[in-house]
Parts: sequence; C-alpha cells; structure tokens
Amino acid sequence: MIVPASSRNIIHLPKGFSFSALAAGIKASGRPDLALVEAVPGTTAAALFTRNLVAAAPVEVGRAHLSKVNGSVRAVIVNSGNANCATGKAGIRACKQICQQLAKGLGIRPEEVFPSSTGIIGVPLPAEKIVKKLPELVGSREPTPAALDRFTQAIMTTDTRQKSASARFSTRSAEVKLLGVAKGSGMIHPQLATMLVYLFTDVAATSVELKRLLRKTCDHSFNSISVDGDTSTNDTVLLLASGQSGIRLKDAGVQKKFAHALSEVCQSLAEQIVSDGEGVQHVIHLFIEQAKNRREALQVARTIAHSLLVKTAWAGADPNWGRILAAVGRSGVALDPKLVNIYIGKQMVCKGGAGCRFDEAGAHQDLAQPSCDIRVRLGCGRSRVAFVTTDLTAAYVGINADYST
Amino acid sequence: MIVPASSRNIIHLPKGFSFSALAAGIKASGRPDLALVEAVPGTTAAALFTRNLVAAAPVEVGRAHLSKVNGSVRAVIVNSGNANCATGKAGIRACKQICQQLAKGLGIRPEEVFPSSTGIIGVPLPAEKIVKKLPELVGSREPTPAALDRFTQAIMTTDTRQKSASARFSTRSAEVKLLGVAKGSGMIHPQLATMLVYLFTDVAATSVELKRLLRKTCDHSFNSISVDGDTSTNDTVLLLASGQSGIRLKDAGVQKKFAHALSEVCQSLAEQIVSDGEGVQHVIHLFIEQAKNRREALQVARTIAHSLLVKTAWAGADPNWGRILAAVGRSGVALDPKLVNIYIGKQMVCKGGAGCRFDEAGAHQDLAQPSCDIRVRLGCGRSRVAFVTTDLTAAYVGINADYST
Repeated sequence: MIVPASSRNIIHLPKGFSFSALAAGIKASGRPDLALVEAVPGTTAAALFTRNLVAAAPVEVGRAHLSKVNGSVRAVIVNSGNANCATGKAGIRACKQICQQLAKGLGIRPEEVFPSSTGIIGVPLPAEKIVKKLPELVGSREPTPAALDRFTQAIMTTDTRQKSASARFSTRSAEVKLLGVAKGSGMIHPQLATMLVYLFTDVAATSVELKRLLRKTCDHSFNSISVDGDTSTNDTVLLLASGQSGIRLKDAGVQKKFAHALSEVCQSLAEQIVSDGEGVQHVIHLFIEQAKNRREALQVARTIAHSLLVKTAWAGADPNWGRILAAVGRSGVALDPKLVNIYIGKQMVCKGGAGCRFDEAGAHQDLAQPSCDIRVRLGCGRSRVAFVTTDLTAAYVGINADYST
Repeated sequence: MIVPASSRNIIHLPKGFSFSALAAGIKASGRPDLALVEAVPGTTAAALFTRNLVAAAPVEVGRAHLSKVNGSVRAVIVNSGNANCATGKAGIRACKQICQQLAKGLGIRPEEVFPSSTGIIGVPLPAEKIVKKLPELVGSREPTPAALDRFTQAIMTTDTRQKSASARFSTRSAEVKLLGVAKGSGMIHPQLATMLVYLFTDVAATSVELKRLLRKTCDHSFNSISVDGDTSTNDTVLLLASGQSGIRLKDAGVQKKFAHALSEVCQSLAEQIVSDGEGVQHVIHLFIEQAKNRREALQVARTIAHSLLVKTAWAGADPNWGRILAAVGRSGVALDPKLVNIYIGKQMVCKGGAGCRFDEAGAHQDLAQPSCDIRVRLGCGRSRVAFVTTDLTAAYVGINADYST
C-alpha cells in the first residue's frame, strides 16, 4: 500500500533509523540545510550514483566509503545549498573532514558515514559551518515521523514540496516497512537526476541483494523521467536496510513482496519529482509502444521528452503532434514514419505518419490538465516503455536564468 | 569580400537568375508567402537535405527531381506558412501538382522544378491557392536586387530579419559572384536546421563538383550551429550554378577562391540564422579545443549547446561555469574532468575541473554582450571545433508555446 505524499501523517517508519536536521547557514535564506540519519548497527546499504564524469566530492567519497565497509552504513549526512562539486582537492578534504567529525560524535568509523551534497556547483563547501553544528545535529536525532519531516525539508533546494512515499507488507511472523524520501526538481534526466533519494527499510538483506533490486527498480522509475535533460553531478539513490523487522529478504515469499513495495515507492517518488519540476505546469506520461526493443523505445521517449519545441507546445497545451512526429524522426531509431500513430489522451491525432481528423478542442483540454497521457506507436515491434516528463515554461527559464548571481 | 546583411544595397547578384514573390494567402497574416527563382538553361545544382526520417513532401519530391535530371535545375518554388510535412500522399500530390503547373508556365520539365516548404507541420498544403497565383508569379520575375529582396522576405516564417550574404572574386578574364539567402530561426540544430538556404552563383560547374564543395562547407557552417536542438523535417541547402560568368570551377585557381567565397557566405548566413534565433538575446561562440578528434569535440559542443541549464544561465548572463562543466561530464566523451579548463571571454573561470579566482562582474559583463566567446579545453588532444549557439529565454518559450492554435 502506497501512502500518497499529501497524507504524510500515515508514514510507515521502518525500525532502526533516527533523523535530525537544522540550519547551518549554508543556504543564504537561513532555511534548514543540514540533515542526518543514524542507522542501527548491522544496517546494510546499496547505492547508485550519477554517471556524469564530473562527479561531486561526496559522490566520490560515498562510493569509496561503501566499498571499504562492504556496504555497511551507520549514518547519512546531507547538506543542501552547496553541491561540493568542481571544488577540487579542497572539496574532497571538506567532505572527509565532515565524515570524520560526525563519526567521532556517533562513535562509529568515518567510512560508515555516507555523505551527500546538493546545490550550486563550483563554490567551496564551508565545512567549518557544518562541523560546528554536528554536536547539535547528533544530539537532536529521533526515530519519529516529525524528525523525518525535518530531514526531508532540510534536503530541499528549489523543490516546492516535500517528497516521500512509504509501503508495508506482512509476512506470517512480522511486518516489513519501506520508506523513501527525495529531493529534486531541476537537472532531472535519465541516469538519475539532480536528485537525492534515500530509501529506508527494516528488512534484513545483504548489500549485494539490495544492489540487484535497486538497479532494476531504478531503471523503471528514476531512470525513466526527465524534466530538462541535464544529468546532475550529485545524483544519488541510497537504500538502507536495518534488519530490525526480523524478516529476511531471502525468506520464502519476501523478495517478491519487497520488490513490489520498492517499485511502488520509487515510482511514486519519481512522479513526485517530475511534478515538482522547475516551472512545470503539466506532467506528461509518455508511452512509447511497438518498439523493436526497450533501448529504442527509451531513445524515442528521451528525444521527445528532450525536444524544446515539443515541451513548449505542451506548455501552451497545444496539440501540435507534428513536433512529436518530427522528434521521433530525428531520434536516431530506424523506423518507417508511415507506420507511426500518435494519441493525445484517448484520441488518435496522427495516423500512419500523417494528420487525421480529431477533436482539437478536446485534445487541447486534455493537455491543459495537470497530467496527460501521450502514446506513440512505432509499428516496429512489441516493446514499450512508460516515461514521465514535463512541459517547459517561461517560469523554468526564470528560475534558472539567475541562480548563482 | 563578404557584404554584411545590413548593407543589402551592395549585393553581388550573379548572372542567370530571376526572382519574384507574392502573397498567396497561405499565411493567415496575409504577408508574402510564395517565392520563385528561375535559372537559365544549363544551370547545375547540388542540395543537402534534413536527416530527419520524417521528411516533408517537398524534400522527397526535390530529392527525386534532382536525381532524375542529373542535378540540372531551372526553377525553385518556395512557400512559407505551411511545411507540407506529415501530410501523407495528399502532400506529395500537392507538391507535384505545383511543380507541374509551374513547369507548364515556364516551358520546362516538371523535374527541373525544385520545391521547398516551411511552416507548420501536419496541415494539408492548399495547393489550389498556390497554383492560382503561378501565372502572376511567373510574369513578375526579374533579375534585380529588388526582386531578390522580395524573394528573401517571402520565405520568412518567425524570422525577424532577412538573411543574405554575397561574395565575388576575379580571375584574369572575368568576375564570379556568389549570393546566398536563408530563412530559419527555430528548430535550428546540426544536421541542418529548420532552415532553407539558397545559394546562387554564375560560375560553371558540374553537379558533382558542387555537391562535394557544398557538403564540406556545410559541415563547418550550417552543421555547426544550434538554437534549440530540434532538427527540422524540411531543412534544405540548395546551390545553383548558372555558368553565366564564363568561368569554370575547374579552371586554374578558381576552385580555391570559390571554396573560400562559399565558406564565407555560408558562415555569414549561419551566424545570421543563429543571431535571429527565436527569443535569442545572446549569441555564444563556443570553441571546444584539445579534443581527441573532431567528432568528440562536436559531441561536447552539442551537449553544452543543448543543455537547458547552461542556456538559461546564459540568458541571465550568469557566469555559472559549473553547469558547463557538468554538461561536459555527461557528454559521453571519455575525458578526465581534472584536465578541463573553461574560459568566458578572455578570463579563465575553471582550471583543472575546479573553480579558480576570476572577476565575476567582468565575466557577467562579457556574457551580457550580444555575442560572447566561451572556450572549453578538454586536455585530450589537438582537435577543435567552432560552434555557434544561443541562450534560451522566456521569449523562446512564449514564441513556441502557442504556434499552431
């Protein structure tokens, strides 16, 4: 059962995690910008990172830490307001210093700390501001929904809404809970996004088991969304399993249920990220069907989702299917345009690569809704993907035209 | 010698071409939307077309005509206001009907007519409106700069300025002239753009000779620009050679001079197209240097030129080099970010993949100019490309959010 983000009071908090957050003065606004998760001993972890070659310092450090401790994580420290990216050796030093100081405060090894940063690129991270606040951060942690709420707020940047989802399922002996929180609303594109996602569960699993499940689930959630086509330098999805439910992932019947719960939580978070995309007015559910294979279907989906002409047409709720067809044609996928059909909402608007009679006012109304389905049938095969994307509005330009100055 | 677009009175009109234009009622605005070029017998031609698989009817017909007559062209007929694309068999029929009627009026073969269309995709072309006006169009043709001017106006869509450039050079016996006109301001991306370019010269050359020169020149001009990353369905570059100067391309010393003139005219037109890009405030000259090869340099250039975050930063004259570095990192080119240097104007702003001290106010001022140079050194090799692109403004979104409705 997925709990929608709007009813955050019915959050299923897994056992084994404490949260805290506060304002350390990294954000000029003075809003909360430093957040901590502490996990019980024995917690296992798996993570996926950005594929951008320009990876932020915390991504490099986090990856190294995970491999040193064989996927065992005891704490996650996140700052917003500064990405600690393109900050050279000083950035790595700052990140390590924070991990060391936090480890000292919690009585754990520095490698058991997993760091994340999000915000502006290329500005030195003021580590001293963070280090000064660590005792207060450590002292105020709590295993409560209210503390989780503060954590979720403190990791936000240009997000306008908190993003969380949770699920639970029962076995004969106990209940397993899964909870995810995320931030991200710009630089959102396949291969993760400017996006931090933390998933907490009390199932017991090895790091290897978690990694396999996480990779598969991400392909169908966080890697099937796009706001602006920019892959961030800091993207991270982290899954932590405390084992506190007493249920093991490898117990009979558990894995299937857990995979289902994980998929539902990730898809909900992915959709929340897209619908909170910078300046987004309309979320578009793009279904690419009759492709030769999944790779080609994704390539077509991304070309459409990335086309400025298509995205601006959507901003105007304009049923200009010709721009969609033109994007299909330049996607690099070999196909016969004469076999392509396009649907907006429930109406066919392009048949066999040419326009067909349809109710334009109706299509305009469908596109004017907060969410609209667009279906492209390629006539090449039997593969399909579901891809979530957005329109591109003047507000997006406004948000991004004056960020660092 | 290149004549800038602003001084259209010093146009070097090659011998052998007549022009006319009028309003046929295709554009709702009632502005001129139908244009004709007639070329003397013996005129040879070469053309490059869009690589979009969704090619407009005139592209299909024009390609077929050229191959049937072995690159000999006697007339070019262009309409604006309707792309005649994704219009199925009816679109092909409409295009052929127009060519046939025009051929009858001029006493030439239908295959000697080269058709072009530009405008909205997916709307049936009203061939009858065009056919009705052909006698008037044919009757009013003139080999004068004023008629050329009317031709250039009639092929415009969202263009705010006419685009032309010309050049001439002398040999011992005579003078050769070259003139180019173009339209295009959106859907502009490598592999040509939503762009129609017509190049006229009075040199004598075979179609094969023209094609070789044209392909090479386009790679460094029209294929090295990007406004919005969308490759149009109608892109066409056509080069016509009347031979009326009496000078042959294969005469001693001519080819080198002609190639230089062609390159200057094409680069000028490419720059005019970009600077008239929809909503463009700033033209960015992007120099990607120290790449392993030209292909990788272009890949990096296009990723930067295509990044919404980079383009919106430019709209705000924001020297946010971190977004440029992040685009380099996700370009798919294997490189070491620690070797990347970035310059805005004359200042280094990123050294070895990290920020360095620079005069931010100065960089902001450089970016606030109508045109600014940005240089990215990859530290991988010795190849370089020059690429011309633009910022992305709220005005672009406005222009494109409500085009068809």
